[in-house]
Amino acid sequence: MKKLNIGLVGYGFMGRTHSNAFRKAGNFFDLKYEPVLKAVCGQNLEKVTAFSKRWGYEGVETDWRKLIERKDIDLIDIACPNDLHKEIAIAAAKAGKMVLCEKPLSLNSKDGEAMVKAVEKSGVPNMVWYNYRRVPAITLAKKLIDEGRLGRIFHYRAKFLQDWTISKDLPQGGAGLWRLDAKVAGSGVTGDLLAHCIDTATWLNGGMTQVTAMTETFIKERKHTLTGKVQKVEIDDACAFLARFKNGSLATFESTRYARGHKALYTFEINGEHASIFWDLHDLHRLQYFDHRDESQLRGWKSIHVTDSDHPYMSKWWVPGLQIGYEHTFVHQVADFIESLDTKNKPKPDFREALDTQYICDTVLKSARTGKWEKIPALKV
Amino acid sequence: MKKLNIGLVGYGFMGRTHSNAFRKAGNFFDLKYEPVLKAVCGQNLEKVTAFSKRWGYEGVETDWRKLIERKDIDLIDIACPNDLHKEIAIAAAKAGKMVLCEKPLSLNSKDGEAMVKAVEKSGVPNMVWYNYRRVPAITLAKKLIDEGRLGRIFHYRAKFLQDWTISKDLPQGGAGLWRLDAKVAGSGVTGDLLAHCIDTATWLNGGMTQVTAMTETFIKERKHTLTGKVQKVEIDDACAFLARFKNGSLATFESTRYARGHKALYTFEINGEHASIFWDLHDLHRLQYFDHRDESQLRGWKSIHVTDSDHPYMSKWWVPGLQIGYEHTFVHQVADFIESLDTKNKPKPDFREALDTQYICDTVLKSARTGKWEKIPALKV
Amino acid sequence: MKKLNIGLVGYGFMGRTHSNAFRKAGNFFDLKYEPVLKAVCGQNLEKVTAFSKRWGYEGVETDWRKLIERKDIDLIDIACPNDLHKEIAIAAAKAGKMVLCEKPLSLNSKDGEAMVKAVEKSGVPNMVWYNYRRVPAITLAKKLIDEGRLGRIFHYRAKFLQDWTISKDLPQGGAGLWRLDAKVAGSGVTGDLLAHCIDTATWLNGGMTQVTAMTETFIKERKHTLTGKVQKVEIDDACAFLARFKNGSLATFESTRYARGHKALYTFEINGEHASIFWDLHDLHRLQYFDHRDESQLRGWKSIHVTDSDHPYMSKWWVPGLQIGYEHTFVHQVADFIESLDTKNKPKPDFREALDTQYICDTVLKSARTGKWEKIPALKV
Amino acid sequence: MKKLNIGLVGYGFMGRTHSNAFRKAGNFFDLKYEPVLKAVCGQNLEKVTAFSKRWGYEGVETDWRKLIERKDIDLIDIACPNDLHKEIAIAAAKAGKMVLCEKPLSLNSKDGEAMVKAVEKSGVPNMVWYNYRRVPAITLAKKLIDEGRLGRIFHYRAKFLQDWTISKDLPQGGAGLWRLDAKVAGSGVTGDLLAHCIDTATWLNGGMTQVTAMTETFIKERKHTLTGKVQKVEIDDACAFLARFKNGSLATFESTRYARGHKALYTFEINGEHASIFWDLHDLHRLQYFDHRDESQLRGWKSIHVTDSDHPYMSKWWVPGLQIGYEHTFVHQVADFIESLDTKNKPKPDFREALDTQYICDTVLKSARTGKWEKIPALKV
Repeated sequence: MKKLNIGLVGYGFMGRTHSNAFRKAGNFFDLKYEPVLKAVCGQNLEKVTAFSKRWGYEGVETDWRKLIERKDIDLIDIACPNDLHKEIAIAAAKAGKMVLCEKPLSLNSKDGEAMVKAVEKSGVPNMVWYNYRRVPAITLAKKLIDEGRLGRIFHYRAKFLQDWTISKDLPQGGAGLWRLDAKVAGSGVTGDLLAHCIDTATWLNGGMTQVTAMTETFIKERKHTLTGKVQKVEIDDACAFLARFKNGSLATFESTRYARGHKALYTFEINGEHASIFWDLHDLHRLQYFDHRDESQLRGWKSIHVTDSDHPYMSKWWVPGLQIGYEHTFVHQVADFIESLDTKNKPKPDFREALDTQYICDTVLKSARTGKWEKIPALKV
Repeated sequence: MKKLNIGLVGYGFMGRTHSNAFRKAGNFFDLKYEPVLKAVCGQNLEKVTAFSKRWGYEGVETDWRKLIERKDIDLIDIACPNDLHKEIAIAAAKAGKMVLCEKPLSLNSKDGEAMVKAVEKSGVPNMVWYNYRRVPAITLAKKLIDEGRLGRIFHYRAKFLQDWTISKDLPQGGAGLWRLDAKVAGSGVTGDLLAHCIDTATWLNGGMTQVTAMTETFIKERKHTLTGKVQKVEIDDACAFLARFKNGSLATFESTRYARGHKALYTFEINGEHASIFWDLHDLHRLQYFDHRDESQLRGWKSIHVTDSDHPYMSKWWVPGLQIGYEHTFVHQVADFIESLDTKNKPKPDFREALDTQYICDTVLKSARTGKWEKIPALKV
Repeated sequence: MKKLNIGLVGYGFMGRTHSNAFRKAGNFFDLKYEPVLKAVCGQNLEKVTAFSKRWGYEGVETDWRKLIERKDIDLIDIACPNDLHKEIAIAAAKAGKMVLCEKPLSLNSKDGEAMVKAVEKSGVPNMVWYNYRRVPAITLAKKLIDEGRLGRIFHYRAKFLQDWTISKDLPQGGAGLWRLDAKVAGSGVTGDLLAHCIDTATWLNGGMTQVTAMTETFIKERKHTLTGKVQKVEIDDACAFLARFKNGSLATFESTRYARGHKALYTFEINGEHASIFWDLHDLHRLQYFDHRDESQLRGWKSIHVTDSDHPYMSKWWVPGLQIGYEHTFVHQVADFIESLDTKNKPKPDFREALDTQYICDTVLKSARTGKWEKIPALKV
Repeated sequence: MKKLNIGLVGYGFMGRTHSNAFRKAGNFFDLKYEPVLKAVCGQNLEKVTAFSKRWGYEGVETDWRKLIERKDIDLIDIACPNDLHKEIAIAAAKAGKMVLCEKPLSLNSKDGEAMVKAVEKSGVPNMVWYNYRRVPAITLAKKLIDEGRLGRIFHYRAKFLQDWTISKDLPQGGAGLWRLDAKVAGSGVTGDLLAHCIDTATWLNGGMTQVTAMTETFIKERKHTLTGKVQKVEIDDACAFLARFKNGSLATFESTRYARGHKALYTFEINGEHASIFWDLHDLHRLQYFDHRDESQLRGWKSIHVTDSDHPYMSKWWVPGLQIGYEHTFVHQVADFIESLDTKNKPKPDFREALDTQYICDTVLKSARTGKWEKIPALKV
């Protein structure tokens, strides 16, 4: 079997999900290319070496430029904090490497535009890890919508609620906490959580036209781990917005890290003329479906346990009733990416689609500043 | 409108549910007879008088024999403890009164046989308050089963779990606690709770042929409120049994007052070749339904919010989405009882059907003693 | 017992809920005044007479002015469409009658102001039927919040979703459909459904400072039942808004009649520093509660079956585990209203509180027109 | 790191779950021994070779005796149908290999006794794959029980419901269907499904003393895939039993493959004096917990999303809110097995504990034949 030689940048949480996906995909899916874990790159030699051993990488690098220069690497996988996405992705594209990039694509739209240009200029396969598209229940939702089962869409509502930053003693910045540092993360919940909601929403419901938003930073100052000083918190702790879609539907979006009781409650619901769909990350193996065309006395919300062999991806796993989890969405993305190679099908979402999400995030943040409805601009690249 | 003059015996919990039902039925249902609350009977004059004022009874009696003798009473409603059911019912039947009786029908099968004979000899309308048949969700279940939607039935399982007698300091006997006194109640959870499960089961799933049971009394001695002495507890605190039905299906039944966390968790499930049904008293306005004939990728348990106008009884109440509660089952029973008058349709369950449940209860208790499978005898009256 | 002589205006859906409440309250609560159903008023003599018989009203009127003139009436209860609220309420107040009024208080804030002035000038007890405050689970929520258990509040979110107007063949206006006629209803979902959400929210979470909203009318034209012509639909089919509260919390509100699968799905959630609360009208007898102060490995959302005797109002009903329903909220409101008479406690929500909700509704609709954040004005009366 | 050289017998469903576990354990857990996939053994050379490539086994064998003879194998993992467990396990033990064996341990108690003798005589580490003990929610349940939080136990109830054999056209025997062939499987649902329930129950609730059972074979004849003939079905399609435990608690157990709507619904509930626990395989990442010592007005069933770092095993996986699935239970078992090596802690459940489950299964089947309560015998080895 042909090899796909992988160079991973970053060995944090996302480095683990990607490594696991590369390792497992071939056990469950019939792959045309075998992913080979050539090298992982990180600044701390000791830590990156420990990571490489744990996951079976053949070697390590401590400078991502060197990783990109290596001839034995086909694909650069970017799993480091957001502020490095742009530079690495552009360099990798210039070097003719395939590029996978963690979400959000970039710190902001401008950076993202440069990244799209780079990968499209070099013509390399590129993809962004909006992994939730490959939750079998969500893939099934997409199928149902594409089949027209919902009819005209009236409403979309999504939220992504967490509660891990409520303590005012939590510092900002540093290892494991860079998501609280605006310089590294770009934004708070908007880029971290709402970006997921937006990616799913535009995939399922088409383009968004305008938004009005509000953001809030509940804890105004936090100690910064790196500087040791109490500094102003620059990220958005919470963000909510109203939106209108091209198809005429209305939407509400909300995200926060101050919703006590919710660890990672990403939910979305879509209401159509004939049918409605609801999904919840805390029970990701289920899809709730209501169809008004059912016999009237028997209408109700159906809880579909998405574990049957005729459900998306599920024939590859175990038997009906036995659930898979979060990590499998990444395995699916690897399998789909490899499947797309040597074909005309681009792996999705690619950088271009992820840029669209970036535009929406930036417009949401802009609206929160201006207090006005703001239009989602057309892609400038 | 013609009047239906009612004489109620007992003013406890069930006296309240019945009185409420008689008062409300005409506000929501088109009745041929108007229930008139003529008199309520109880031993304690002060208490029964207070009750009569609260509920609008025209008068009171302190001796049920006098109540039965009264010419201005058409119907005797028995809502007192179980040990008095037999004597009152037989006297009322002899006096030509219609008779409604709280469940269980009697202390035991023998008493029940005498009661059936009495009402059938006198030919008076008679009914037992197995109220759960008239939960709209259960009535809907019955309809679905009668339409053959489930196909061949394989399994029935029911349980009725409570947790109110776990404290060893709870006394037995006396006001509000007569259900713990075997002399007054006849049995413990078997007659109190399993009788409900059995009534529903035989209504939905047909006759039962044999059972094997176990019972337990976890707290062996309790102070008796009336005697003031610590005495042996004679009732069954818990009872579970396996059963076979005439239609070939297998069943499990369980009841207890020692299931921490469950106040009145009566649930049943029925599994057929094509479809299954589940219901739960704690959310009595919902019916869970699974149909294997649904399109395979969309199969799931449907939660039917039984509040639409095409659901049983619901056109009489509010609007879709607005739930009714426990008390309404009694209202439905009153409405159906009155509807049956002057027709050939007997109000159900009548004493005869309730006797069948009594036979099963007695056989369950017998099996618990013998440790053997015991057959359900045919009715001897 | 002293009498409280009631004159009801309107015999539609709300006429039924109120009549039932007046009739039942005394059976379950210890009332200082006995509600007496003196007369019901409606334009159609035949229909109002039938209604009066069904519910036990002593008489009927066909002109509300005559009803108000009657000396034997203590209280005017307004349960007719919104466009008549103002005139009747003011006349009743002038006549010195107590006034109960269905929600929303009025067609708009201006009308509401006049109504507040009238009842406050005459000093009569007055109350608006925002019945959901008396769902035991919501009353319990209020108690928990008032005890400070949630700590600083970060988020409030509410929605009220229905699906009964999706068909374009549904006419606007006329009996049972006046809620689709802007002239009679004042607005669409904003006054009908969001008003409930706002009343609960301001009761639980305090004052609201500003909002930004969007509305939509999905079906632009409908036949009008009264004119027989196809006319422009003037009401809002859907409305969503973002809001900020005085306590610093952020909120999202949404309502629609185009959410397939939801009959009357009023839900709200409130997230505090220490604890969170969720409630759902489709299972109104439950309250979901999460407390972060629980032992960490055992933290989770608790589903409280609000049917215990130490839960609000529940000692008056049945036994633990046996649920009450929608109608009981009105019974509680009657009981609380009567309890407040002859005391210094004003029955709540009174007209003044309901006017605040009216202001918010009007501001929401204004924002939907201007596309801007709009401040909630202070009460001008 | 030291190596643990593994020889796997069988490449079916369980061959996959075990291989995945051996491969993944080291990525997530700190292992003292590195599992090395030396060889997989199966009769069909082509198929076993394909399996070995997919999973990265170094080589293949087609005769399990040769596998056992190999000096480079430390551990024999038995994942083939039940009828071969005994012979392979005994041979492996004699050869001094560690032995892991799929459940149920054996076709019957007698075979199991010989297996226990063999592994104990040779003193090799041995373990049976009752994987559900390592669902984090169940491990948490065990911890709560061991801490005495439930108090005296009154009730245990478990069921394992499936619906995949309802069609009468399904053949018995052959690849993927050997579970319907009594000669290969030993029994039907009793050994396949109830064995899981019994293993969990005795682990959580201690020893069982007696049972009374019923079994049923709904479809009496099926075509046998291997013989091509319609033959009598010898397995139990359904089995239910009542039981008593040494601690005085009462139990009900039920299993079937004819419960329409349930794919693999293994649930159990345990009711104690103070607290109760419920778990459901269809949502295996949740534990339901009720504690009566909670403040009374706030009592309720808590749904614990068992994904926090202080939950069993979960610190090794992702972040709070992100669920793991079925396969991870096997990973945990591998990690625990390896952890136990070179220590005095025996990996559990070992063959001896699994034999106890086998005794109970056999006693259940005996009771179903005799129609009597039967005592669970003491282990004879």
